[in-house]
Amino acid sequence: MTNWHEIDQHAKKWIKEAGEIIRSSFESTLSIQYKSNPNDLVTNMDKEVEQFLIGKIQDTYPDHRILGEEGYGDEVTDLDGVVWIIDPIDGTMNFVHQQRNFAISIGVYGDGVGYIGLIYDVVHEELYHAFKGNGAYMNEIPLPKLDQVKIEEAVISINPVWVTENKRFDHNVIVPIVKKVRGTRSYGSAAIECAYVAAGRLDAYITMRLAPWDFAAGIILIEEVGGSVSTLDGEPLDIISKNSFFIGEKHLHQHVIEEYLKK
Amino acid sequence: MTNWHEIDQHAKKWIKEAGEIIRSSFESTLSIQYKSNPNDLVTNMDKEVEQFLIGKIQDTYPDHRILGEEGYGDEVTDLDGVVWIIDPIDGTMNFVHQQRNFAISIGVYGDGVGYIGLIYDVVHEELYHAFKGNGAYMNEIPLPKLDQVKIEEAVISINPVWVTENKRFDHNVIVPIVKKVRGTRSYGSAAIECAYVAAGRLDAYITMRLAPWDFAAGIILIEEVGGSVSTLDGEPLDIISKNSFFIGEKHLHQHVIEEYLKK
Repeated sequence: MTNWHEIDQHAKKWIKEAGEIIRSSFESTLSIQYKSNPNDLVTNMDKEVEQFLIGKIQDTYPDHRILGEEGYGDEVTDLDGVVWIIDPIDGTMNFVHQQRNFAISIGVYGDGVGYIGLIYDVVHEELYHAFKGNGAYMNEIPLPKLDQVKIEEAVISINPVWVTENKRFDHNVIVPIVKKVRGTRSYGSAAIECAYVAAGRLDAYITMRLAPWDFAAGIILIEEVGGSVSTLDGEPLDIISKNSFFIGEKHLHQHVIEEYLKK
Repeated sequence: MTNWHEIDQHAKKWIKEAGEIIRSSFESTLSIQYKSNPNDLVTNMDKEVEQFLIGKIQDTYPDHRILGEEGYGDEVTDLDGVVWIIDPIDGTMNFVHQQRNFAISIGVYGDGVGYIGLIYDVVHEELYHAFKGNGAYMNEIPLPKLDQVKIEEAVISINPVWVTENKRFDHNVIVPIVKKVRGTRSYGSAAIECAYVAAGRLDAYITMRLAPWDFAAGIILIEEVGGSVSTLDGEPLDIISKNSFFIGEKHLHQHVIEEYLKK
């Protein structure tokens, strides 16, 4: 039988060790490469941290599979057995430009069910963590269930680019949401944004396209604080594919789906 | 003769004491009031911190004048003599919703010239400070002059609401900028955004309307790292009025003014 508590202890130890690798890199020179386009950055540190985590997982759990952003893991096309979904640096652009506002993200799934979600804000040494059924925490502080919020009093995260014409989603559907809420923010790291929603600092987060490694940990945190997770059409996410993405306090989430996104 | 170095030492001491008042308030209950509309929040803490700072300034420098967001200072209609421009909590919405991503902002001007700019990110204990002609710092770390950046590689801050139709500025002028840059962010505190530009974490910050207390400290930091400051029309700011606001690395700033905002 899978010992989820042991996996949780290992995952927390390894994510903190990975954070230490990143922190100590701030002294040395970063090698930046471009992936598909000039805005899709990857650094030697993304690769090094992914390889570090994969090495630890493979040594300890040779039968587990790993889906990682940088592609050093396995070819994962289903969620049978135990699957680790990892992003060594979520928010690489922030890492390169700011040396802050990025996170390491690790989600661990068993036969498709999310058991462990870890998001580590390395610079601020804040580990957001959730274990299925045991609630969510920031370091040692329990994160309360999300309080009901009205749209006029909500602060949501959405990137400015999604309220301009784009190929993913009709921006005219999004504009009225932005105009109705109390405030809008954008931090540039899906993992950080998920952690902020889980901590009640944002009431929702809307984006047009995320990969599994961007949200695998975050959605476990959101579910543990009673939030809702769906695509922009209100459908369940496909965990091993790219999806549009909408998380938030459950009443607000339902209201936005019904009154804005489905209209 | 005005002893600017003594004023600087006092201002730094008082801003840190004010930060301590805010930090210790996190334990107690916040009283939130609405100003002109439900999105314009003010708390007992905004008022208490402004009164604390004004008390210190008036006791030590009875001939200085004070322009403060919450209105406990003086009626200031010119910049003759020494004028302190203070925002006790810049980013009140973040303070209320997040207990982070807000700052205390203090700018001190002599006959209209900015001498001292202080922005204190209370939660992260990061004091961004500049003294005219002596450069800018984050705590003890000198902030280097800003490096030239191309628009395709720039990360800029702009609130999503300004790329939707609004009464301040034609959003169709702003949309192409958002589409051209590498990334867009929005933090919801003008002081934090100014500090981020000064620290090179953002290359520019564009917003449609700021009051003197929002930018008085920030523009002194920006000038000390060689950045440019103007309205969206490329005109100098009127320090004691509300203005549209555009700061950034100087080549990027000039490019955006000429190729986007003036077209």
